[in-house]
Amino acid sequence: MDTLSKVVSLCKKRGFIFQSSEIYGGVKSLYDFGHLGFLLKENLKEFWKLQMLFEEFPIFFIDGALMLPYRVVKASGHIDSFVDPLVDCKKCKHRFRPDKVEKELGVLKCPVCGSDELSDTRFFNLMFRTNLGPIDPLIELLNSSSEKIGQDTESIFRRIAEQSVYLRPETAQNIFVQFPNISRAYPTKLPFGVAQIGRAFRNEITTERFLFRVAEFDQMELEFFIDPDQESALFKVWQEKRMTWWRKILNNPEHLRLRFYDKSELAHYASACVDVEYKFPWGFDEVEGIACRTDYDLLAHQEASGKEFFVLNTTTDMRQVKVRPWVIEPSCGLTRAVLAVLLDAYSELEGRSADGEEKVRVVLRLKPFLSPIKVAVFPLVKHEDLISLAKEVFHSFRRHRIISFYDESGSIGKRYSKQDEIGTPFCVTIDFQSLEDKTVTVRDRDTAEQQRIRVEDLISFITPCIEMPI
Amino acid sequence: MDTLSKVVSLCKKRGFIFQSSEIYGGVKSLYDFGHLGFLLKENLKEFWKLQMLFEEFPIFFIDGALMLPYRVVKASGHIDSFVDPLVDCKKCKHRFRPDKVEKELGVLKCPVCGSDELSDTRFFNLMFRTNLGPIDPLIELLNSSSEKIGQDTESIFRRIAEQSVYLRPETAQNIFVQFPNISRAYPTKLPFGVAQIGRAFRNEITTERFLFRVAEFDQMELEFFIDPDQESALFKVWQEKRMTWWRKILNNPEHLRLRFYDKSELAHYASACVDVEYKFPWGFDEVEGIACRTDYDLLAHQEASGKEFFVLNTTTDMRQVKVRPWVIEPSCGLTRAVLAVLLDAYSELEGRSADGEEKVRVVLRLKPFLSPIKVAVFPLVKHEDLISLAKEVFHSFRRHRIISFYDESGSIGKRYSKQDEIGTPFCVTIDFQSLEDKTVTVRDRDTAEQQRIRVEDLISFITPCIEMPI
Repeated sequence: MDTLSKVVSLCKKRGFIFQSSEIYGGVKSLYDFGHLGFLLKENLKEFWKLQMLFEEFPIFFIDGALMLPYRVVKASGHIDSFVDPLVDCKKCKHRFRPDKVEKELGVLKCPVCGSDELSDTRFFNLMFRTNLGPIDPLIELLNSSSEKIGQDTESIFRRIAEQSVYLRPETAQNIFVQFPNISRAYPTKLPFGVAQIGRAFRNEITTERFLFRVAEFDQMELEFFIDPDQESALFKVWQEKRMTWWRKILNNPEHLRLRFYDKSELAHYASACVDVEYKFPWGFDEVEGIACRTDYDLLAHQEASGKEFFVLNTTTDMRQVKVRPWVIEPSCGLTRAVLAVLLDAYSELEGRSADGEEKVRVVLRLKPFLSPIKVAVFPLVKHEDLISLAKEVFHSFRRHRIISFYDESGSIGKRYSKQDEIGTPFCVTIDFQSLEDKTVTVRDRDTAEQQRIRVEDLISFITPCIEMPI
Repeated sequence: MDTLSKVVSLCKKRGFIFQSSEIYGGVKSLYDFGHLGFLLKENLKEFWKLQMLFEEFPIFFIDGALMLPYRVVKASGHIDSFVDPLVDCKKCKHRFRPDKVEKELGVLKCPVCGSDELSDTRFFNLMFRTNLGPIDPLIELLNSSSEKIGQDTESIFRRIAEQSVYLRPETAQNIFVQFPNISRAYPTKLPFGVAQIGRAFRNEITTERFLFRVAEFDQMELEFFIDPDQESALFKVWQEKRMTWWRKILNNPEHLRLRFYDKSELAHYASACVDVEYKFPWGFDEVEGIACRTDYDLLAHQEASGKEFFVLNTTTDMRQVKVRPWVIEPSCGLTRAVLAVLLDAYSELEGRSADGEEKVRVVLRLKPFLSPIKVAVFPLVKHEDLISLAKEVFHSFRRHRIISFYDESGSIGKRYSKQDEIGTPFCVTIDFQSLEDKTVTVRDRDTAEQQRIRVEDLISFITPCIEMPI
């Protein structure tokens, strides 16, 4: 089995990530995070949030609505440019992206049945459309005037689009649209940033590779507002800052690289872009994009709304001038970060079972600050006094808000294995010696080695090992 | 101006909460949280999350997809029961909920123009419908067979509904649908809980009262799975636990009450329910519902999916039996909690301006653990040595990850006022005495009194005051 399949299966078995609505056959492009996946994602979020909140530059957060009205996505270019081409195979009815298939196969034919009888290319917008307010204009139309529908499909579509709201295709637009309010409420000199963590939505034609390309995903985006003449210097600064962040969450930082875009690859809003790529099992692929968006978005919303988008800058001769900032945008795919971290951490190490036999240990070598459970506490066997001391130790971790897990079921070897599989960095075992000298064994996940530590020193031993490295 | 209007205006001015897409005229039922609102909401989230993670009962988290396929919301009853009545005024075209208007006015007539020429009552589903996958069935239909539309509207609607996905109307359903995966991945004895924090969506006909009734809102829901015969005892336990939580976030806990539901008021899934109500300016109103959902949801999904929903229970004679748990659901409206906390904290206190004149001080008396900014640091005047020491103090707070704010602009009195308005509990001022004896003044937000504290004692003075009270 390949590593991706192993990780998918471990995620389900141990409760990191489940396919959505699995009991109803599953929805291919949606996932639900279970307890361990939630905690892992929360730790990644917290690590990013702390970097931003305690950054040398001033950075403000927002948490915007997920629905954007038509005027926002029209002005931002998403109505017209956020489209993928689409063709249907006339023979087997398979629907696919012709650009992707042509790149992979060298020719354009159906990747399922091989037929070259294909429909014309249509263009398909990747945004989810819905309707805010008590009546869906499409249903109204259907209800009231079905006889008229055939006449002018084009104008009906436009009218429906204009009355719709769209699930945001990126978190960025909330920030641009609120720029006048933000810059008024927190008057700050350039450069400064506005950050957001949250869900974004893309109605992808092809979803693939577990969490890699899904319909709902979490982004951690920073819109960093700058003086236009600082673009090139600050573009570099953010490449370094973000690579440093990525290196800290992985065991194998050599699996990261920066890939600079050719002009032809740039999105409709970008003047330059570099991707942070991680070496997935299928090759290097994007986990973060750092884009120079110039003043594309602020200008677009200024023109569409008639409002002014600026900050006040002081010139060298002390005059105040209005400047419309440019933007550098490090846009981190949080859902992809979870996938990269899981793949990076998945290891099969040599080990021994309880009866001394050699066997493979599956170990999720997560950086301890990312591990969902920080410490597991076991009584060696089910003995009243061991259980009592083990629970005492367990509760002292909880009092210090260290996420811990108590387990007394099955053999000690099996309990260790279970914790290895979910990436718990430390297992504390209470044995009979503990009752005599108040020491316990602390087992290290990666080496499987144990050392004896006094109960009273446990917190101060473990705390520094699980701290966020900022 | 009434308190609600004052809070709305403060929220906009100081950057807590903005109306969505304000530059385009605003979307009435959507709000974007600015930096201070984000931090306040994060603190409330963290306080709830910590309660759940370190609860005496085992509680697991999930973070589910926001889109639910038709089969989920059909089985849960939301397709058929999550509907509001709706009428149109034939005269002025105003659209409203007849049940609400009749309750308020005593008769049924248009609340805008007073006409009693009204349309028939229609029923309107509160869920947002959208389409997952490259083609919207409604648009396909419109495109390909417009001549057929008139024939069977009913069956067209049903077909469209079945091919749609719905934005979740409550976070709860992800938990119920994943129950088989969750109980297999984390085998645990009853009672145990599964919790979720996240966005939910309701296409309300009437949105009102700022954050109180909006289209997108955040919930913090716990589904607490129990042995059926423990319902009454654990229903009480959760009323107490949740009231304790609510009391800790408010200055005026006497503005809270529990309101028990009459049978006639119960939602389609509930056997009993109590609301936590807060005394808003318009009267007591719901901020949390604690519902006994019996096994309504698990049974509904079991029947619809054909999968089994159970945990293994050990009987008194040590046999293992399958039990389908019942559910107690404390469902906290996070967005409403933000509103309640802001209203509770808003105060106009007596004070003096810098020149000794009496004036009203607007103070946001947030509990310090909820305050977005914990401490502000000011040099008394713009003097190089004061600025240098002030920045040193500011950076030492940041190193300890205490969210702090540095300000050297304008008079010291104005700087204090600004921090009072956003609820910063402490202002540290560096004056000329500081340069001599390394002491600073620490001003308390609520009393406006100052005390001198040694710079080296600042962290240990402030830290315990801002800790979460769990």
